[in-house]
Amino acid sequence: MKDTNLRIPGPVPLPQETLDLMSSQMINHRGQEYADMLDQMTNNLKTVLMTKSDVYFITASGTGGMESAIVNTTSPGDKVLSISIGWFGERFAEIADAYGCETVKISFEYGDYADTQIIKTALNENPDIKAVLITHNESSTGVRNPLKEICEIIKNNSDALILVDAVSSAAGSIISTDAWGIDVVATASQKSWIAPPGIAMVSFSDKAWKAYDKSKCPKYYYDMNQYREYAEIGQPPFTPSLTTMYTLHDSLKKMVNEGMETIFDRHSRIAQFTRDLAKNIGLDILPVEAYASDTVTAIKLPENVDGKMIVKEVEKNYNIVLGGGQQKLAGKIIRIGHMGWINQEDIESSIVALKETLDRL
Amino acid sequence: MKDTNLRIPGPVPLPQETLDLMSSQMINHRGQEYADMLDQMTNNLKTVLMTKSDVYFITASGTGGMESAIVNTTSPGDKVLSISIGWFGERFAEIADAYGCETVKISFEYGDYADTQIIKTALNENPDIKAVLITHNESSTGVRNPLKEICEIIKNNSDALILVDAVSSAAGSIISTDAWGIDVVATASQKSWIAPPGIAMVSFSDKAWKAYDKSKCPKYYYDMNQYREYAEIGQPPFTPSLTTMYTLHDSLKKMVNEGMETIFDRHSRIAQFTRDLAKNIGLDILPVEAYASDTVTAIKLPENVDGKMIVKEVEKNYNIVLGGGQQKLAGKIIRIGHMGWINQEDIESSIVALKETLDRL
Repeated sequence: MKDTNLRIPGPVPLPQETLDLMSSQMINHRGQEYADMLDQMTNNLKTVLMTKSDVYFITASGTGGMESAIVNTTSPGDKVLSISIGWFGERFAEIADAYGCETVKISFEYGDYADTQIIKTALNENPDIKAVLITHNESSTGVRNPLKEICEIIKNNSDALILVDAVSSAAGSIISTDAWGIDVVATASQKSWIAPPGIAMVSFSDKAWKAYDKSKCPKYYYDMNQYREYAEIGQPPFTPSLTTMYTLHDSLKKMVNEGMETIFDRHSRIAQFTRDLAKNIGLDILPVEAYASDTVTAIKLPENVDGKMIVKEVEKNYNIVLGGGQQKLAGKIIRIGHMGWINQEDIESSIVALKETLDRL
Repeated sequence: MKDTNLRIPGPVPLPQETLDLMSSQMINHRGQEYADMLDQMTNNLKTVLMTKSDVYFITASGTGGMESAIVNTTSPGDKVLSISIGWFGERFAEIADAYGCETVKISFEYGDYADTQIIKTALNENPDIKAVLITHNESSTGVRNPLKEICEIIKNNSDALILVDAVSSAAGSIISTDAWGIDVVATASQKSWIAPPGIAMVSFSDKAWKAYDKSKCPKYYYDMNQYREYAEIGQPPFTPSLTTMYTLHDSLKKMVNEGMETIFDRHSRIAQFTRDLAKNIGLDILPVEAYASDTVTAIKLPENVDGKMIVKEVEKNYNIVLGGGQQKLAGKIIRIGHMGWINQEDIESSIVALKETLDRL
């Protein structure tokens, strides 16, 4: 039985042994103990992200990882292609806009996945695109984009860098970083990694490093070269969120031991289970099921129902915290996160609470 | 007896009750519980920093707070005055350089404090200076600048914004933000706040907001307007380092209860105690004592002694982690942090270890 009923798509609830680890004493982040931990974490993160490229840990939330992807590889005036399927896709484009990129925007409807043919057309119409921004898993809509196919179409039609927001997918859904040709993957600790918020993680390919050398975006805290130089002496450039690093270190070891295929299967099964239960109580899933997320399920509410009220009532009466809709979807959907160690019992109690509340109101 | 002998100037060792708090379960950062916590923390932080201005919590290390100060108030080409007395002063200038400011640099010798007459001259020679960057407490040299007097001289000779790196001083040494006319104070959780790393804190004056409106530095994660807008609904713009926030919440309550004068006195006394013990074993303090820091003491080593070796030997034989010298001072000094709950016993054992190691080598 969990001591929390947090079912939002992150921060995820943490098991007792993780919580215990979080209370570890501080250590010198410029000493050998940290260097050894960082070294192991770096290797394990490469395993999880299936990459031989550099990977770094940044003390920031996932958005900081996304900003790192852009400021280290682009310059003001660079044409970038933003492929958005929801709120976090829009955020990725906003970051590029903020740094002066000329952002060509493709926006799909909330609930839709990105159509590769439309991406192909955009790339062919804009041969000068330097980077493509793409959300792997859009947690605002519960859609997982067909990332492998999208990367293929980009590779076949362009030399652009591929920058991926994998904040809510990495460690729960497969990302074969090198095989798919992804230049930067950005993710965050409070999702499928079963750790508290506080650390963003990024991979950085050789091609990304070549782009770095030409990049004129101003940067300091997110300057990847600082991370690269300090990594050589086993240190972070800036004082890291140690508590998050301790737990992430443990999670990474456990993930590599469990095996990524097993982990991805587990997420896939709990996602299917969630969708099946939702359909059993007569509700529809927002996206087409083939593109439904393995880490968060978006459930459509009947038209006359106020979703914000449902979330409030479920929390008040069942002590279960569901996710509501964001932006265009506010009040219209319920989102249930099932990353990390969420199991069938957790999902069952959430769906029962949802059904009873819908029946009552 | 502490379970750790961390004597570096941050991260500080944490008491058991703080460690216990760190293992608290995750909560919804967009729910009422977080909103209530953020509200109380915001009010208490204003009390500690002695300001009625806005204050914000940012998931980043202290350098992220310093970067926030610059990117939200300046534009590329703006002339800024950097007053550096050590490594962290240089970092503040590097950030301004990275964002395209025209940085007029005054650099004092490592170990010296900033002379107000030199600052006055620089301001009069450069009437177009838009912002002054100043380190309150230079943890690389154990010097505390006469910040009140520096602010006075700036106010009397310029309309420039005053941006203060108070990473290693705030909560340990007095900063009367409003009375001294400081526009942005940047600090970080792992110092005198007795919390783990992970959260930077910034104050932001009305004058800083006026500068914000004209600022053309690109920004997204550090865009203060996002923090302002989300604060209105009791939320952070991005998922915060919850573990750090929990402990910082507790620390802030305790600090306000203990009273800031008592806390500053406590830091002042332990600093004096540290200097006295160091002198008792025949060592000199790096700075002139009137400008010695209340949070970290820099002790000069005899000329023929390798400071890096001393730090290693003390850790190996006494399990006490001292700070070494940084940059120009590498190998030449020992730094002892005495922020937060460090007491006389902790300092005594450190100085004994230092003396015995010096005698032996």
